[in-house]
Formats: sequence, C-alpha cells, structure tokens
Amino acid sequence: MHIGLDMMGGDFAPLEAVKGLQEFLQKNSWNATIHCIGNESVLLPLFDAHSINTSTVKIVHAEDTIGYHEHPTKALREKTQSSIAIGFRLLATGELDAFISAGNTGAMLVGAMFSIKPMEGVLRPTISSVIPKLNGSTGLLLDVGLNADCKPEQLNQFAILGNLYAKHILQIDEPKVALLNVGEEEGKGNLLAQATYPLLKENKHIHFIGNIEGRDIFNDKADVIVCDGFTGNILLKMAESVYDLTIKRGIEDNYLQRFHYENYGGTPVLGVAKPVIIGHGISHARAFDNMIRLACKMIERDICGKISQELLS
Amino acid sequence: MHIGLDMMGGDFAPLEAVKGLQEFLQKNSWNATIHCIGNESVLLPLFDAHSINTSTVKIVHAEDTIGYHEHPTKALREKTQSSIAIGFRLLATGELDAFISAGNTGAMLVGAMFSIKPMEGVLRPTISSVIPKLNGSTGLLLDVGLNADCKPEQLNQFAILGNLYAKHILQIDEPKVALLNVGEEEGKGNLLAQATYPLLKENKHIHFIGNIEGRDIFNDKADVIVCDGFTGNILLKMAESVYDLTIKRGIEDNYLQRFHYENYGGTPVLGVAKPVIIGHGISHARAFDNMIRLACKMIERDICGKISQELLS
Repeated sequence: MHIGLDMMGGDFAPLEAVKGLQEFLQKNSWNATIHCIGNESVLLPLFDAHSINTSTVKIVHAEDTIGYHEHPTKALREKTQSSIAIGFRLLATGELDAFISAGNTGAMLVGAMFSIKPMEGVLRPTISSVIPKLNGSTGLLLDVGLNADCKPEQLNQFAILGNLYAKHILQIDEPKVALLNVGEEEGKGNLLAQATYPLLKENKHIHFIGNIEGRDIFNDKADVIVCDGFTGNILLKMAESVYDLTIKRGIEDNYLQRFHYENYGGTPVLGVAKPVIIGHGISHARAFDNMIRLACKMIERDICGKISQELLS
Repeated sequence: MHIGLDMMGGDFAPLEAVKGLQEFLQKNSWNATIHCIGNESVLLPLFDAHSINTSTVKIVHAEDTIGYHEHPTKALREKTQSSIAIGFRLLATGELDAFISAGNTGAMLVGAMFSIKPMEGVLRPTISSVIPKLNGSTGLLLDVGLNADCKPEQLNQFAILGNLYAKHILQIDEPKVALLNVGEEEGKGNLLAQATYPLLKENKHIHFIGNIEGRDIFNDKADVIVCDGFTGNILLKMAESVYDLTIKRGIEDNYLQRFHYENYGGTPVLGVAKPVIIGHGISHARAFDNMIRLACKMIERDICGKISQELLS
C-alpha cells in the first residue's frame, strides 16, 4: 500500500511529521510505503537527524506549501507545486492509496471533494470524531463540521457511513446507532431531528436505537451518534477544551487522557472515493504516527469499497 | 416579597424542598415570605422535624400534584388543585411575586407561557444556563432547550435578555455577548448563524464581540453566549455529564465542582412577565435554597421590569 504524507502540513511540520514517520517506521507492521511529500532540501537533513533511511520511504519533492490562512480553492488551483496539490494529484492518478495532511483544512476538504470526489450514491461526504466512552470503548460522532446545515436524508446516510466505519475501523460488531437529540422520545427535537428519526427507524443498513441526549455521549448507550455538523463541531471543540482545562487544572486521569486528539490522529473524510485523512493543525509526532496507521487500516479493510457496496446494495 | 415554592416538585420532594427551605430561612437576609405550596398533612410533620416555625412561612394547601410523565397541558388544565396549577394562579393574581418548582418541566413551561405570558415585545421566552468560567467568573448560555428551532430575530432578542440577566443578576458590568458558531469569522456557520450575525452586530442593546467556538465556552472570551435551543440543550447536558464523570472517576477539583447544577439551583424563564424558576428534577436542599435566593434577586432587582423597559425603548 502507498500512503502519501504531507510533511509540510501542521504547526510543527516538518519536524513533528518526521518524528511521527520515524515512530511509524520503527514498527511498520503494515508494510506500507510512505510517500513523503515536501521540500526535499528541508526533509533530507531531518531524515538524517532522525535516522530515517531514505531507501525505506519515497520522497516526493514539493516546491511549495499552502499556508493556514490561504483561500482553499484559490491556493489549490494556483499552487500546483504545493504538497497538498501534489498529494491529491497522486491520489487521483492511483499512485497513492491514501493521503494525509495536517495542513490547511479547507484545502484538504476542497481536494477531497473535487479532486477525489464523492463516491456514487453519496449525498454529502462527512467528517467524524471518535468519542472515548467511560466504559473503555470508543464511539463515533458525525458530522463534526463539514455540513453545518443538513437535510434529513443526509443525516440518514451519515448513519450508514458511520456504521460502516465503526464496524470495520473501530471493530464494533453491531454498532448501536443513535440520533443526537434533546429528548429520548420519538417526536422530540428540532425540525431536522423530527424529520430524521423516521428515516433512521426505517433504515435497514443500521441498528437504530433511537434518540440519545447530550448526557449520553460518553456512556455506552450508542456507538455511532448522528447529528448536523453545526452541533457536532461545537460539541467536539467543547470536548477538546474540557481536556485542555483538566490539563490546566493539573488533573491526571486515564479516562480524560483519552480525550487528547493525538490519540486518534486525524479525521477521515467519509464518502469520498479514496481515504483522505485531515490532521489537527497542532499535530505532534504521535498524531502523525496514528494517522499513518489509520490510513493503513482504511486501505487494508477497504472502507471505501465497503461504503460503495453498501450504498449501491 | 412573596415567593411561591412548590414543595411537591422534584424527585426528592417534599423532603429536600423542606431542607432547602430550612437552609434559606436560617439566613433569610432578603426578608421574603415563602408560600409553601403542597399537601399540608405531609408538610406539617416535616416542618416540625426540621424546626421550621410555621408562623414564619405561609402554607398553601394543594391536594394534588402533577407527575413527571403527565402531559403538561392536560395536567395543568385538569389538575386545578395541583401545586403547580395553584402556584401559577397565585402568580397570575399577584399574590406571589415569583414561583419556583422542580416538578414537571413541561407543565412549568406551559404555565409560564400561558398563565403568565410573554411580556410585550418578546418574540419567544427563553431559558438559560450559567456557565462556570475557568477564570472564576460566571457566564450565561441561552437558549438551552425551550426553542429547538430558532429564527435569527429570536436569537438576536435572546442576546438582549441574556445581557440584562448577566448585568443585573450575575452582576457583570458590560457583558461581552457572543454568537456560538463553528468558526470565528463573520460568514461562518449554518444558515441561522449566518443570518443572526449581522443582526447582533447592529444590535444597540448589547456589546457584541462576534462568534466564539465550542472551545471558548469555558474561557473568558464571552459572558453571554447565544445559540439555538437544540445546540444549547445538548451542550448543557453534555457539560452536566462531564461533571458526573469526574465524580465517577473520583476527581476532586474546585473548578469542576462548579459544574454541579445544585450550585445554581434552577433555570429562570426569561421573557415572561414574572419570575418563574424551573428546578432540576434531581434537586436537593442546596438547589432549593439557591432557587429561592435567585427568586429574591430577580424580584429585588426587577429583572422583568428591566427587560420590559429595554424591549420597549
């Protein structure tokens, strides 16, 4: 398998990307070839300093990078020699099986949507976040920001995408899928939730358990939690801030540790034809290592193929 | 001032209501007369057991109570001798200046909306929650569930109501008002947030500081945070569950302690003509004590009058 890694994306790139790559290569139990996309003259001394044998990776020189504050569409179109533009080109032509970057999120989304494209039958691609459960397991919340306004049919399809991801990537046997809402009974909620409930109830692809409330996000009621991207994004960022504040308060706790984004690495874009993983801007080595391993899993378990099959079935 | 307290509302009523009343009366720095609405034959022995001198309170006998699972409108109409129905009658006739119950939330809302009614100029009443800030101060989030679907003009008015509450009840000099959103820049967000931003920007009644994100809820960027009731309700319940899980994990921390709902007692309904405070079903003594003190503040500082003036100005 061939995985493209943008070495220049993220606040602490390329150093942390190099360190994460080093961590990955030390075990590399997946036998993956990593295509390191970035400025060769910057990368080579770093590889040398971190004992990365350049014969074990592929270096793809990128003259340019897309900055954090650049306009995504404009930058992708104009900066053809940027690491993100090159990554998507190689992914589109099939030289790569997956592409990872912690760089400009907007450019990653634009690339995923327009150079990779949603697969047939997908109404809207979505991004998700894993949720650490109090019982030790892991759940999934989606959408977490790609789709601020959603239609009921879209939420209904996010449930299918999330269900497959939970099954094949998180390896949950029969994921319990729930609708995030303000009350448990059918009929509760805003107009979107009210209209989505009956669709989920009839959805043969999933095991729908009904509505759950904000207080149930961290318990074991549901494995896959569906909501619009506005609500999901605000919840996700609030949960991240809870982790930050426990650190500020000097609280050490194994469960709360699991809220640290580095443990999960990045967010896959679900519903596009090939694995695309978007990292947090503040990614450190562990996040890069975890993103590469997530890409390996997504390729090996053919999550895109499984989504495509399910939607066409 | 005359405050009506439903002694029969809440999972641990009447015992915890009696204990909370006892706590309040021990200091009663407000010189308030508490009208204890409930079943006299149940209350008298409890008052006796908790050394509450019945000459210091008024007992209003209520033959009936509205249960948790009863239909709000139907129960309020049919159970005319229930503590909630009696409370709203006394509030409407002016015998009470405020009414508090930890009973059936739906019945409390229906009573607030239909027997007390929104004041002139109010598009939709709202409920809020206080937010413990990491810097020790207290913020306000609204709406937290009364209005699952909102219009931009409603959010714009919630900002005014929240601003006045923050100023006069939380005693924040010039509250910083923000719109909860998925990004900081104007133009970000779902259709509702996009349409609300320009209204808030032009709103002369408030000091609008722009959008804040989910990660900013507990920091000091904003004092008053405006959102639709769907998002707010889910956030509030999630925050409450974070408190619960720190307890489960055996974490003791002064800041996280402040997330305990008992510290705030209850949620006032803002925008109705008289103070109505709705308690959490699981209210214990401290919550009842705090709700009575909140009612005193709301009466003394004439928050309803100030809202009315501001909306008509």
